[in-house]
This record gives sequence, C-alpha cells and structure tokens, in this order.
Amino acid sequence: MTQLHATPPGGQHGSSQHDPPPRGMSIGEYLIARMRQYKIDDVFGIPGDYILTFYGMLEKSPINIVGCTREDCAGFAADAYARVHGMGAVCVTYCVGGLSVCNSIAGAYAEKSPVLVISGSPGLAERVNNPLLHHKVRDFRTQIEVFEKLCVACAELTDPVVAFREIDRVLDAMARYKRPGYIEIPRDMVDVVPHISHAYHRARSDQDPQAADEAAEEAANLLTKAQRPVLIAGVEIHRFNLQDEVVALAEQMKVPMAATLLGKSVIPEKHPLYIGLYEGAMGRAEVTKLVEESDCVLLLGAFMTDLNLGIFTANLDPAKCIYATSETLRIRHHHYHGVGLKEFLDRLAARKPEPPVRAIPADIRAERKPFVLDPQAPLTTRRLISRLDEQLDDKSIVIADIGNSLFAATELTIHAKTEFISPAYYTSMGFSVPAALGALTARPESRVVVIVGDGAFQMTGMELSTIVRRHLSPLIIVLDNEGYGTERFLHEGEWEYNNVHPWKYSQLPNLLGGGTGYEVRTEGEFEAALIKAWEDRSAMTLIHAHIPRNEGSDALVRLAVKLSERVKGK
Amino acid sequence: MTQLHATPPGGQHGSSQHDPPPRGMSIGEYLIARMRQYKIDDVFGIPGDYILTFYGMLEKSPINIVGCTREDCAGFAADAYARVHGMGAVCVTYCVGGLSVCNSIAGAYAEKSPVLVISGSPGLAERVNNPLLHHKVRDFRTQIEVFEKLCVACAELTDPVVAFREIDRVLDAMARYKRPGYIEIPRDMVDVVPHISHAYHRARSDQDPQAADEAAEEAANLLTKAQRPVLIAGVEIHRFNLQDEVVALAEQMKVPMAATLLGKSVIPEKHPLYIGLYEGAMGRAEVTKLVEESDCVLLLGAFMTDLNLGIFTANLDPAKCIYATSETLRIRHHHYHGVGLKEFLDRLAARKPEPPVRAIPADIRAERKPFVLDPQAPLTTRRLISRLDEQLDDKSIVIADIGNSLFAATELTIHAKTEFISPAYYTSMGFSVPAALGALTARPESRVVVIVGDGAFQMTGMELSTIVRRHLSPLIIVLDNEGYGTERFLHEGEWEYNNVHPWKYSQLPNLLGGGTGYEVRTEGEFEAALIKAWEDRSAMTLIHAHIPRNEGSDALVRLAVKLSERVKGK
Repeated sequence: MTQLHATPPGGQHGSSQHDPPPRGMSIGEYLIARMRQYKIDDVFGIPGDYILTFYGMLEKSPINIVGCTREDCAGFAADAYARVHGMGAVCVTYCVGGLSVCNSIAGAYAEKSPVLVISGSPGLAERVNNPLLHHKVRDFRTQIEVFEKLCVACAELTDPVVAFREIDRVLDAMARYKRPGYIEIPRDMVDVVPHISHAYHRARSDQDPQAADEAAEEAANLLTKAQRPVLIAGVEIHRFNLQDEVVALAEQMKVPMAATLLGKSVIPEKHPLYIGLYEGAMGRAEVTKLVEESDCVLLLGAFMTDLNLGIFTANLDPAKCIYATSETLRIRHHHYHGVGLKEFLDRLAARKPEPPVRAIPADIRAERKPFVLDPQAPLTTRRLISRLDEQLDDKSIVIADIGNSLFAATELTIHAKTEFISPAYYTSMGFSVPAALGALTARPESRVVVIVGDGAFQMTGMELSTIVRRHLSPLIIVLDNEGYGTERFLHEGEWEYNNVHPWKYSQLPNLLGGGTGYEVRTEGEFEAALIKAWEDRSAMTLIHAHIPRNEGSDALVRLAVKLSERVKGK
Repeated sequence: MTQLHATPPGGQHGSSQHDPPPRGMSIGEYLIARMRQYKIDDVFGIPGDYILTFYGMLEKSPINIVGCTREDCAGFAADAYARVHGMGAVCVTYCVGGLSVCNSIAGAYAEKSPVLVISGSPGLAERVNNPLLHHKVRDFRTQIEVFEKLCVACAELTDPVVAFREIDRVLDAMARYKRPGYIEIPRDMVDVVPHISHAYHRARSDQDPQAADEAAEEAANLLTKAQRPVLIAGVEIHRFNLQDEVVALAEQMKVPMAATLLGKSVIPEKHPLYIGLYEGAMGRAEVTKLVEESDCVLLLGAFMTDLNLGIFTANLDPAKCIYATSETLRIRHHHYHGVGLKEFLDRLAARKPEPPVRAIPADIRAERKPFVLDPQAPLTTRRLISRLDEQLDDKSIVIADIGNSLFAATELTIHAKTEFISPAYYTSMGFSVPAALGALTARPESRVVVIVGDGAFQMTGMELSTIVRRHLSPLIIVLDNEGYGTERFLHEGEWEYNNVHPWKYSQLPNLLGGGTGYEVRTEGEFEAALIKAWEDRSAMTLIHAHIPRNEGSDALVRLAVKLSERVKGK
C-alpha cells in the first residue's frame, strides 16, 4: 500500500495544511491512512459482502480488526474506545450492518463521542435501473439519510474527484465537534485511484478572538469578586482533553470543584479541591448546598441534561453562572458567540482570577468508613460498592451500565483521571460489556471493572465472547435483582414486564471457553471471588451477584421519586 | 377500560366505515382496541420509562406482552409473527429502544411485513424550552425522522383532536401496503381522552376498475394462446393471503407453478403442478429451462430482487411476461396503473384462460432418494438437510437464517402452505431465533425448526432465553462451520475476519434453565438427537451440529460464483 506521509492532523489548533497525498493512492488506502493519523488503531465490526473488499484492505493494513458478535456491540465498543483513545471506528456492511448501529451511534452523538461509521454499499455499476439488490430498504440513499439524523457529518464516496476531500471533511468535523461521522463506500470505489490529488484543507475557523477576550475578562472579574465561587466540570473537559487546564485553574484560584454525573472522574476524585458530584436534589445535600449557595458558579463543559441536573431539581441562578461548553458561552444572561471552550479557558487562566480563599468545609466530602466484612450477611449493592471502592487503584477503569449499576457506581471513588465510563445521559442499557471490549482494546494494561444489571447484561453480555477470544481480562459484576430494577421504582405496582428470565451467568466462562465464573450471595462469597479475580489477570472473571430484588442505591431512590412523577405525567 | 365495539377492520375490500369510538376512550385505549381489531394479540418489546404508562395499560388489556432480551430481537419476532398472523407489533421506549429496532423494521419494510412500532416519548409538558432529557439524540423529532425512512406511515400522537384518525391512518396504510408503521406517544398523552370522536374513514381507493378489466382481458388472451405457459408465485401471494386463488387459477389452467426464493412455500410443495424454485442460473437447470423457454410467464407477487433472480442470471424476456405485484402491473412492455394484485387475479380467474394442457416433464421435480443413514460418517449440511426433509410434516414451520442455512434449506420440501420463513431478500443475519419466538407465539401448536449458522446464532441466539421462559419448544439446529461460511466463498483467501469464536452451544439449555442440548459430529449422532427432539415437545432442543469448514450447498456454490464477481467489482 502506498503510505500517506504521517503528518498528524493536529489538535484543534493544528496546522491547517497537509502535504497532498501521494499520487497512486486509492480511496480505500487514503481512508485508512487518514484514520491512522487520527490514531484509530483498531476498528470494530462485522464483515459482509458489500464491505469485504475494504475488510481485505484493512486486514492487510496496520489497523487491527476487532470482529464482534453483532454490530450494535461493535458500536458501543467503538464509542468506549473513542472515549479512552480519542476517536473510534466501526466498519459494517450495507443496511443490515449499518442500520444495526443506529442506537449506539445515536448514543455517541448525544454524549459527544467521535465514532466513525464506515459502511460498504452496492457498487455504482450495480445500481443501473435501480434493481432490488439484497439489503436495500427503500432506495440506495435510505441508509445515509438515516445517518444524517445521527451524525455530525456524512459522505458517500461516489465521486473520485472529491472523495479525499469528503473523507477529510467528515474526520475534521468529528475531531472538532466530538460527534460521530459516517462514510459510505460503494464497493467498486474502494480500489479507485483518483486522477487528481488535493492538498488537505481544514474547515475554516469561525472563532471570534475579541469576543473570547471580552468574555474572559468579564469572567475573571466575576470570579475575583466572588465570595464563594465553585467550579463544576462536565464531560466535555475530558472529550476536549482539558483536564489539566481545568485542575490548574481551580488550583490557581483555590476554588472547590464538583463534577456532573456524566462528567464523573473528569476531576481526579482524590484531589483536595474535589467535593463530589453535583446532581441537584438527587445528590448529596452538602454538595448541593455549597454549589447552590455559591455566588459564582463556573460550569465548564457540562451538558445541562435531566440526569446531570437531578431531573431538573438543580437550583442554579443563571445570574450567578458562567456556563461554557464547546457550543455555547453564557455569562449571567448574555451570550458570546464564536468562543471555543479551550480558547475561553486559556484566556481565563491567563488572567489569573483571584477570589478570596476559603477552606472547604470538612463535612463536604462523603465520609468513607473502612469496610468491615460481615461474611454471612446477604450481599447488597451498597455493601458490594463499598467493598469494591477499597479495591480500586490507579489502573482501574470502572464501566457502569444503566440503572442501579450507574447510580450505585457513582458512590465509588475514582482514583486517576477519567476512569469512569458510562452513558449517563443517553442511558442505553447494554453499553457496558461491549464498552469493556473497547476500553481494553485501547488500553490493554488497565483493570476494567464492569458493573451491569441482569436486564442490561442480557442485551449485550454475550460480547464476552470477543473478550474471551482476544484474551482480555475484565472483571464483570452482574447485579442480579431478577429484573429491570429501576423501573420497579418508577412505576408503582408489581408488573410482570419488569421481570427478566434467570440465567446461570457464572456458566458463561465455560460456555465461551475462557475465564472464571462465580455465583455469590453473601459478603463473604463476594470477598473471596473479588480477591481471586483481582489476582488473576490471565482471563476475564464474571461474578454473578444476587442482590435484593427491591434494593436501590441512595441516588436511585432519590431519582426514582422524581422520575416516577413524570411517568405519571405530573 | 372502555371497549371499542369489535367491528373488524375488514380485508382490503372491507367496509369503509366503522362505528365511531365510544366517548370516554383515551388515546392509549383506542390504540389497543384498534390493534385488537387487526388481530394483534401479542406485542413484543422491552419496557422503559417513556413507555411505562402504556405498558401498564397493555398489561391490563387482553393483549399479551412478550418481553424480549433486546429490542432488535423483538423486532424480528414481531416480523415473523406478522408473517404468520397477519400483523405484528413492537412496543419500546424512546430512542434507546426505538433506534435499536431500525434494522429489523427496515427488513420488514423491504420484505413487506406489517409490523407496528409503538414508541413512547417524553411528555409534551416536559419539552418546554427544549431541555436535554435522557435518551434524546439531536431534537425531539430525531426518532420519527429516522422511521419516516423505514416505514410506510408514521404518526406522532401530539394532538388529541386528530390522534384517533392518525392511529387509523397508520394501521390502514400498514394493512394496505403490508409495510411497517410507526406510532409515537408522548407519555402524557396515553391517558388523554379527546373531546371529539370521529367516525373511522378508510383511505380512499385509487383503483381503476376499467384498467383492471382491460389488463385481465389481455392477460387471459395471452395465456389462452400460449403453448407453454408457466406461473411463478412470489411472497406477496402470502402477504395478501392469495394462495388459494393462485393455486385455483393454476389448477383451472393446468399450468406448472414455480416459486421464488423469497416466496418458497407460498405454493404447497407437494402440489402436483409445483415444479420448484426458479432462481436463474443459481437454481436447478430443469426448472430454469422450463421457465425460460416458456412463451408466457405469469409472475404473481414476485419481487424482482437479486437473490430471487439468481443475482440477475434470470433470463426472462419481458415481451413474454405478465408481471403483477401489489405495486405494479406490467404486461409485455406496457404498464397498467391503479390495478391491485387481488383485483387483477380475480378478474383474470373469472375469464378462465384455457391454454393447451401439457404434461409436466417427469424430470422436472428434484428427485428425492430415500435417506440411508451412514452412522459413522461425519455430518455434512447436505446430508443433514436430506435427513431433516424426511422428518418434516404438515405441522412444521422451517425458519432459515441467512447464508448457507438459507441456501441449504431451499432443498427442503415444505408440506403445508407457507411454512418456510426467511428474510431471503433483506438477508439480515440473526433473524431466525427471534423469529421462532414470533412464529411460536402466533401458532404455539406448530413444530418450528430453526436452521442457523454459528455467526448468525451469536448475533441473536440468546433470545432462546425468552423461548425457555415462555415454555416454547422449537428445534434449533446450529450449523457450526467455525465462521461466516458464505463469505469464505465470496472473497478468496483465508481471512481472519471470517472466523467466529467457538461457543459450547449445547450448554445453553442448562444456562437458561430449560430444554436439552446436543453436540453432534456424525450422521448417527444427529439421527439420535433429531429423533429425541421430535418426540420431546416439552421444551426446546438445541442441536450443535459440526459441519465441514468449507462445505457449501449446491445453491451456495452456484450463488457464490456470481456474488464473488461483484465483490471484486466486476
């Protein structure tokens, strides 16, 4: 394969020019070369006849193909890979493959995870007279029309003259907006070598430096004057790789930092200025009080979602807020346009705002009592989480699925930077096991712990197959409360539809030919299994943990009260 | 619940008026009442908070909720249910649920299976100021905009004044076009009782009876004059419930009948006039010759798809064809508009075309040699199918997944009417196990046999969980050739991406707490397992059949030659 000179595409402020691609490069080769520049070293997916030519090219390239059991799992894996590694990709066949990743790509869009969807499609030469080729739904554009609703940029590589530019455009938009992109390649275009070769052009910037200066000045003044400022960090701080800047700013100002639910672990949770998650009435009262009594709240990269805001029980006065994301900058009640999150942060830090320093109240952090084992006691989620909390170290990545798993896991203390992964806004059940595949593919040396309910596990847990196949060694904890536990809190009454069929989960390692399974009911049994799992890095461990049918974490109970009012239409 | 007077909506030619719904009925109640009129007795799905109110209403209604492990499986189950029962439904929550059924609904669209998608959504009262509610992707209309690409009719029940009419419109279009429809209910609309109540109005007919008369006259003349007429029946004959009419027409004319791949089993395969599948160069040469040498080919309800036509190796001269579907009527090179398939068939039959009668050549039917067991011989697909063919009876429904399973299964003789189910056009892998759930829910007394490859089984096979839970008893045959076998034929070379991880499939009944598993490698072992499975109707049976890695059925080998040329872009 002709090699594209490995100029990295640069960060948000990288160079706006690349060398033109060498002549003789095919469309497929160019796509692979550009993916490598964005550090997509692994691609998730399933082959199918409309994408086989490109799969062949991928298999011969330095990019590693991770074959999954199903496409939506590949989508979740690529999403987690992107969260850990910067950008991810799925590669699938036309319609039966592509339309199977709609949900995982929608989740990546909603939570700003840049996943590239590469789909094969019927060759242009096959399309004459609009025949009914297999996998076609309505017309040849149906699939791309669907993805136009779910991606930040889409391209169909039907014209060699603009194919390279189209690839550039999609990847550029993904890097800039941290959203998924879509590239469709008719199978007879993969090997086509365009006659013309273009130099790379980055999309023109729409930044307004003067607005950024004015905004930074105003924010610095507000912060300097404030008596009780507080900083709230959201998930975009991770997506745009701004953790160090945010922590440095907080340290320079000596202001306390909270995180949102979706942004959990964006701030190292053992940092002395970190006070915990801010979630309105859903969160711990001490944090809520400190934030809501602040006279200047600096919200950085936080999505104002219902779950982040405790189902809108957050009580933040906009007149006291500086709200900066990659898409919006609002100070009090006015807006600045054309100011990027990093531009704003850099300029604000340069002005060194100096609010008066106050000690953080001693009771603000959740008290951590040492875990004392009660070996015969029936296991509960609460106790399991307390025990697990003591086990986590700087190499751990916690991936929480939706429902009680997520709410319970918020009580964990995450040690290093960005080691908590969960679709806490889009909340698609079944994310966690495929996400473990993605995270371990990106960072094989880490210790991945998955916390997943029985309902969510039944959706996608069989992706453990690929985890076994690739000799990865996560710890999977299946919290079995015999059903969709969160919904029992949301809709009063005993509904049959909330029950799920019992599986003997601990038999799965045997069925899949790798790893070890445990079934535990008491604290002592969990303790023994956890210790063995932690020692054994040779293969995955699955712990099937029976928990009480109607137990909820504190956060779930508080949330359920709010959510159930909405289910009733109040 | 207020009951809607149970006037059935009638067939395509039913009455165009219903009684107005009684006052006091809520939108949710009206939807349930109308679904029951269309004989939707069972609904597949997964609950979630935006749909819980409607789930509660469903659980209290006579409609049975079949909770699945994941939404796309629910979609496949509803599709198979619709194929067996007339109309099916899935009921899911917003976006995380809805966007997970895109692929199965796209398949139902492509193959004309009327599946109703019911999705909850955020309450209208919650949407003020466009907040970021969980599960939202881009804006509140993202999901319906996606389904507008995949359904024949979509409605958002946001206005009580027109909600009943909107429900009628979607169901009417589904019944008429046999395609999926989509209804989205904001959760605060489920219990709303509209102030006004409308009488039901069926969409106005766009039929042209004079065109139908002229077409029938022309077709009858052509058939009467023809020396060697032949009839080819496609899947629409089943969808529109016209099997008896078609068989009666053939019997009256005494012409031989073939079926397309997608239409396999539309004609009872033991009927004396039935000659087999017509698939161009892919099919058996005797059938191809008889059809292609015919001087008048009457194609009824057949989709001209690539797989149906043997990757366009069919050699049919349009000047000799009468091509009638629900969407099109073409005789020789001219078209009639506004003529329904049934209208045309009825009028044609009334004219009693009388071609000269010819005996069907003796060698036209595939010869069936009695199966002689070779107990020690390693099992092959070909031998497995021959053995299974002897076992099938009038109560059997065969569901074939995609790839070698489908091509091999085409060699089976299907006894009764319409007992072969496969997504032979859209060809989405993983259809079969969830489809068994759907077919058995519709017709619990039947003997469902699933033939599925290892790759397809790994996509959705865990839906066996629901099959066990509901005490259904299909026979699942997993053909294990250690990978995506069809693709090995399509793309020369030994590609790692075609291999799938080995599972110990026969352990699944134990893991799921029901049924029996067998692992077989020889004809003798398969024989023993099959006999036990056939005798045991108490629970499901799974036979894990090891077959040669590179064996293909005759049909697959013929097909692969054609398809691989296209993979190479020839």
